[in-house]
Amino acid sequence: MDVLLKENERIDDLERNGLKIIQNKNGFCFGIDAVLLSAFASEAIKNETSMIDLGTGTGILPLLLYAKTNIKKIVGLEIQPQSAEMAVRSVKLNKLEDNIKIVEGDIKEASKIFEKASFDIVTSNPPYIKAASGIVNPASEKAVARHEIHCSFEDVARESAALLRPGGKFFLVHRPQRLAEIICTLREYRLEPKRLQLIHSFADSEATLFLMEAANGGNPELRIEKPLVIYKNVGEYTKEIEDMYHF
Amino acid sequence: MDVLLKENERIDDLERNGLKIIQNKNGFCFGIDAVLLSAFASEAIKNETSMIDLGTGTGILPLLLYAKTNIKKIVGLEIQPQSAEMAVRSVKLNKLEDNIKIVEGDIKEASKIFEKASFDIVTSNPPYIKAASGIVNPASEKAVARHEIHCSFEDVARESAALLRPGGKFFLVHRPQRLAEIICTLREYRLEPKRLQLIHSFADSEATLFLMEAANGGNPELRIEKPLVIYKNVGEYTKEIEDMYHF
Repeated sequence: MDVLLKENERIDDLERNGLKIIQNKNGFCFGIDAVLLSAFASEAIKNETSMIDLGTGTGILPLLLYAKTNIKKIVGLEIQPQSAEMAVRSVKLNKLEDNIKIVEGDIKEASKIFEKASFDIVTSNPPYIKAASGIVNPASEKAVARHEIHCSFEDVARESAALLRPGGKFFLVHRPQRLAEIICTLREYRLEPKRLQLIHSFADSEATLFLMEAANGGNPELRIEKPLVIYKNVGEYTKEIEDMYHF
Repeated sequence: MDVLLKENERIDDLERNGLKIIQNKNGFCFGIDAVLLSAFASEAIKNETSMIDLGTGTGILPLLLYAKTNIKKIVGLEIQPQSAEMAVRSVKLNKLEDNIKIVEGDIKEASKIFEKASFDIVTSNPPYIKAASGIVNPASEKAVARHEIHCSFEDVARESAALLRPGGKFFLVHRPQRLAEIICTLREYRLEPKRLQLIHSFADSEATLFLMEAANGGNPELRIEKPLVIYKNVGEYTKEIEDMYHF
């Protein structure tokens, strides 16, 4: 094994095709958001062959989507050197260097780093919180993952639209509080919302996350899927979520 | 009784405070949409004293909101003479002439007919289908209620924004297919979406309607409520819907 773990790092089993990921237990570890987004996106991915994940962190989305779809060319773009370097080591650990390429770089420059209109799919689990609001987490890696420090949602939408071929699909996960604003920003860049799913912790609680599929240059017509409920009871996942983690 | 029924008309009991409504059995009769909208709006109505319902049809929203809230000055605007005249007779039948005023007129002219910024609340159950699409129902009264023949959603948003005082609330029911477009149109007129609820026929089916509360000049921050499910089993309402009909 030529992939060494650094201090505070551990290898987590993704329980899917034997895939593993390296994470730093004091850093930003992937959450249910990434699992939900990969399941939502993989439902809609059919013959697409190339995708890019904007703000890939330690590479969880590329790994999960490689396992769940037939996409063979996956790029993960990450601005934080430490996270990008961990993602590179996870790709090596899984021997997926021919399929997944991790690039250290800025989302704001994505359509300069990569060829325009060259991807079938863009995914993003962007920072949820506006830079000026909330209490900023002092650990920089976590702060950048959660707050719009390096890029705004408008940057993500603009670059996604530029990277997608006509008709290409954009998948994202975000918070309901920002749904109205995000829908309008997507439409400004001709990313038309086509499919929306709300995530509720319990069947009778407010939504805590949403999943969105938008089409580059699509016609306006939105489908809103059945609500996805995470817990049946406190501490007990619903069948849908169990299946998502163990498929 | 000085309110006479015309041919094909009947009096329906609203099962609420003894209220009744006159409907034409061959015309457009109120549906679950109006019941859902009145329940959704009444939850959020506190000290407001004046409201207008744009496209009131035979007056179902004014009657239900009079019963459920403390609003004492309600206007219903309706372009179709036949529906407006039936609404006037229903108001008389319920002896609510001092509280509910039905005006025959065009939504597009609403802010000329009424004083600008003079209402606390605007409600609307507008036509759902774009004028150019779908098979237009040949019976004109039904067609006007379902298709954007006399006004577009943009007309409804523009006039609602003009009629509402700053901070006033706009409540509407519409179809998920048009949610993205409607959110952006509302925001163009500074009607900020604040609360959204999706309606699903069954717990595991796509959304068929949505309810929205927007604030005139509000800050962007949306709450998405628990999903509202209509049927527990085929033909059997959930408790939430039962309560809504019989409160």
